[in-house]
Amino acid sequence: MNRTLTVAAAQMGPLQKSDGRDVAVARMVRLLEQAHHRGAEVVVFPELALTTFFPRWYHEDLDEADQWYESALPSPATAPLFAAIRRLRLTVYLGYAEIAHEPDEHGVLRKRRFNTSVVIGPDGEIVLKYRKIHLPGHVEYAPNRRVQHLEKRYFEVGNLGFPVVRAPAGRLDGVNMGMLICNDRRWPESWRELGMQQVELVMLGYNTPSLNMENRGFEAHHLRVFHSELSVQAGCYQNACFAVAVAKAGSEDGHELQGHSIIVNPQGEVMARTTRWVDELAVADCDLDMCRLGRETIFNFAAHRRPEAYTHLTAHAGSVAPAVWSPK
Amino acid sequence: MNRTLTVAAAQMGPLQKSDGRDVAVARMVRLLEQAHHRGAEVVVFPELALTTFFPRWYHEDLDEADQWYESALPSPATAPLFAAIRRLRLTVYLGYAEIAHEPDEHGVLRKRRFNTSVVIGPDGEIVLKYRKIHLPGHVEYAPNRRVQHLEKRYFEVGNLGFPVVRAPAGRLDGVNMGMLICNDRRWPESWRELGMQQVELVMLGYNTPSLNMENRGFEAHHLRVFHSELSVQAGCYQNACFAVAVAKAGSEDGHELQGHSIIVNPQGEVMARTTRWVDELAVADCDLDMCRLGRETIFNFAAHRRPEAYTHLTAHAGSVAPAVWSPK
Repeated sequence: MNRTLTVAAAQMGPLQKSDGRDVAVARMVRLLEQAHHRGAEVVVFPELALTTFFPRWYHEDLDEADQWYESALPSPATAPLFAAIRRLRLTVYLGYAEIAHEPDEHGVLRKRRFNTSVVIGPDGEIVLKYRKIHLPGHVEYAPNRRVQHLEKRYFEVGNLGFPVVRAPAGRLDGVNMGMLICNDRRWPESWRELGMQQVELVMLGYNTPSLNMENRGFEAHHLRVFHSELSVQAGCYQNACFAVAVAKAGSEDGHELQGHSIIVNPQGEVMARTTRWVDELAVADCDLDMCRLGRETIFNFAAHRRPEAYTHLTAHAGSVAPAVWSPK
Repeated sequence: MNRTLTVAAAQMGPLQKSDGRDVAVARMVRLLEQAHHRGAEVVVFPELALTTFFPRWYHEDLDEADQWYESALPSPATAPLFAAIRRLRLTVYLGYAEIAHEPDEHGVLRKRRFNTSVVIGPDGEIVLKYRKIHLPGHVEYAPNRRVQHLEKRYFEVGNLGFPVVRAPAGRLDGVNMGMLICNDRRWPESWRELGMQQVELVMLGYNTPSLNMENRGFEAHHLRVFHSELSVQAGCYQNACFAVAVAKAGSEDGHELQGHSIIVNPQGEVMARTTRWVDELAVADCDLDMCRLGRETIFNFAAHRRPEAYTHLTAHAGSVAPAVWSPK
């Protein structure tokens, strides 16, 4: 059976602070329609696709930021998006800020905040949910930074692991789908968690500034797109999977986000790329059987991985100083 | 203090089956002298640098292959190499096949075989030893292959972990050095084990065929150098380290090995590259303080890694099937 799936990266141009959900949702519905016209069965939107990238704005009181979060999906504001998904029979990745009223690790019911993505199926049902694990940035206002990056303030670390699910998508009875969000893509651990569950299609959205806001030396600005692509290409090659990596791009209230959304195959090749900083589609036909070569040969994990030698990977978060050599 | 170290990738052209150790050692001494003249303080040779890549040849009886292994370093045959290292005050990575008479995991003294590399210091002393962990290939003769790849026959899995040591090198009092061998470079676990020990300089040698010998579809031959570079560049970026990745290259008794040895910085940029398939040097000045940016910001492991979510990395070697979705 031919296992080709047509996928679309639905990059979004900027959303300003003043833009309501209606602006975002109307643009997303147009992108879904365009993607459908181009034959796409799966459409991937960016991280936090319904609002501006609000973790650049500081609020002392978290509750003042509640306007940026969704308490329910669908909601009246997002209903048109779900209606379009059902009408066009699409499978869609959506990133958003989530408020969940659920027990914390001590069993106490709390209002909790996550940087979340979902896979929405063609009946509008939530097929899979993921909550971002590798939160970048910082908790407190950082006076040395030109722009704040307060993800560690606005979100808890995701508590759903790195789930992969096999579900119908487009013409196919079953596709192994997993998700990452933004900074997760730079961490080989994220990709490997998905690869260890035989992921075939990794969907990931991001909001990545086009400039390094720490004002430190060494990192040339032109390398930022390269680092993003390098991470996605290596993740796909080393885990024998496809990825659809999708940016929010352009100037949000004067703060530039890089574009260059890409679709990558299991050889690590870029199959399609957006090149503007506006709402823009990239579409590619993904033959999921291409995942088999890596899995059955060089990256046959069962034959070649050696967990007994991976003594540092899960034993601790931070690094340790190496042994110091001294002459005998 | 300026922490710049000048390093050389000492790529070697082919070694034929009939070439003795004297041929290899004489060429290596010339490469050391050339590297010294170009200011190098650290020189990296390929994997199994003293002989042809013998795992392409099948022997039913392992003992018949003993001629390809070293039982001692230095030995009469390798003494000129050690003499040159002492004379030029170099730090050198050397890959070789090792026979060790040592207890196995049951405490029984045995003749054991490893694919090994060492760092040799400027006094000719062994500063660090590594035994290859990710052995590719197969154990038994494979009639479907045009060329055998019997590393899993000729070597045991390395039993020294992924060690990193801080030792003097060149002008510097202390450099955090680690090693990988060939196929290890494709596994992000290898790089992360070294990164978790604050490695600054990864030395790695390889013998990589320029064609895929499995005769399967999908993988275009032109991607093989790309995959090697992608793996090294991602490893350096994601672990904020330099790497010197060095090939044995050219036609060994009709079997082509790819070249394209590279030196890569912590931004994942290629600083220097060989472009022929002969004995050839690439040299670069590595400012080891460039490792700090990644370590202190985006790849600050203590701040951002989440081992509690890495549930598959060390729990098992092979992958598991994902959950299958069913409508509620």
